[in-house]
Amino acid sequence: MEKAKIIALKESVLEDNDQDAQALREELHAGGTCLLNLMSSPGSGKTTTLLALNKAFGGRLRWGVMEADIDSAVDADTMLAAGVPTVQLHTGGMCHLDADMTRQGIRALDMDNAELIVLENIGNLVCPAEFDTGAAINMTILSVPEGDDKPAKYPLMYETCDMLVVNKIDTLPVFDFDRERMEGYARARNPEIEIYYISAKTGEGVQELADALVKKVKEWNAN
Amino acid sequence: MEKAKIIALKESVLEDNDQDAQALREELHAGGTCLLNLMSSPGSGKTTTLLALNKAFGGRLRWGVMEADIDSAVDADTMLAAGVPTVQLHTGGMCHLDADMTRQGIRALDMDNAELIVLENIGNLVCPAEFDTGAAINMTILSVPEGDDKPAKYPLMYETCDMLVVNKIDTLPVFDFDRERMEGYARARNPEIEIYYISAKTGEGVQELADALVKKVKEWNAN
Repeated sequence: MEKAKIIALKESVLEDNDQDAQALREELHAGGTCLLNLMSSPGSGKTTTLLALNKAFGGRLRWGVMEADIDSAVDADTMLAAGVPTVQLHTGGMCHLDADMTRQGIRALDMDNAELIVLENIGNLVCPAEFDTGAAINMTILSVPEGDDKPAKYPLMYETCDMLVVNKIDTLPVFDFDRERMEGYARARNPEIEIYYISAKTGEGVQELADALVKKVKEWNAN
Repeated sequence: MEKAKIIALKESVLEDNDQDAQALREELHAGGTCLLNLMSSPGSGKTTTLLALNKAFGGRLRWGVMEADIDSAVDADTMLAAGVPTVQLHTGGMCHLDADMTRQGIRALDMDNAELIVLENIGNLVCPAEFDTGAAINMTILSVPEGDDKPAKYPLMYETCDMLVVNKIDTLPVFDFDRERMEGYARARNPEIEIYYISAKTGEGVQELADALVKKVKEWNAN
């Protein structure tokens, strides 16, 4: 099995991350690339969702993935095996990525003409929400076993995200998870948030999510 | 229903957290109080586990709880309703607690003769592992739906913990979770880690965990 290239990110020296993030977003836009920042708790199914999306994209997008982790290259090797260009980013203990670290990753990924680059951020509902990575789309995954109260407890994550993907809906019969309660908490923080329900494992709902994403990416790159 | 007191923690000004944490540990020890720092991902079942432990303690420990959250007081109200003295700590967006913030919480809890105080830390597998809170016991919960690879991805959490509680074992039939694989990753980081398997929901394994904890707390306070 092909092993992913592992990039040790350097700590950023730039003082104004917001400004740097905006510059990166504009550079990427000019080059026809949409960056998606994917965030969630550990174990919500970020990598499994990306694998399911890859199938559902059906070749409609040239895309690549940056897998950020404190340690290990489990996820990057998995994505590579599925044929998706992927690099593994090691943050050296850092709990989030900022725009400069994201730029280092994009350089290491070294793709020509990528329409979509996904940054799989560190599994953490707190710190990643505080740092603009330069992404055009911010997405968070909430898995059913984590509970319907997460948008109340980690509000900034839900405020900053454009898309909320509720994963592992095949386990709804096993857990007490009230969709309306969760949606109420999420929309109280972010009335515009788009909510998708999927099971990356069974495939339920994945096609709708993939179609919405393809549309969003093509629109972003065209405008 | 009684509402929990909500304490807004002030940012710490102390430079040496390790030294401050050691001082707090010694103060607490001198006063016959064992502090337990409970960490996990969001939604692993920290509060549900504490509720189950409260029943299984069967009055053998005088104990109290500090619920740390970015926002909301859901957990503290739940613990209070179960008759456990509890305060809600708001971290103002901070992703972890240090020793000084923990001390502010203990003062607000204001218990005489507590044998055990549990700090339910912010749901985060990264930052809380980096800050000594002054706890005598560090415990982490890993829930089955999060997957068996978490000790490989978040190594510092497993290195710093004395006890690992694997929760939601009632869902083992629903998820691909290999106990041996998980234990291998965890013990590679921390050969001494004590591992307990429970379902806080069904009660399986909770009595053994409670008994072990009562023993540990009494021993710590007596020595």
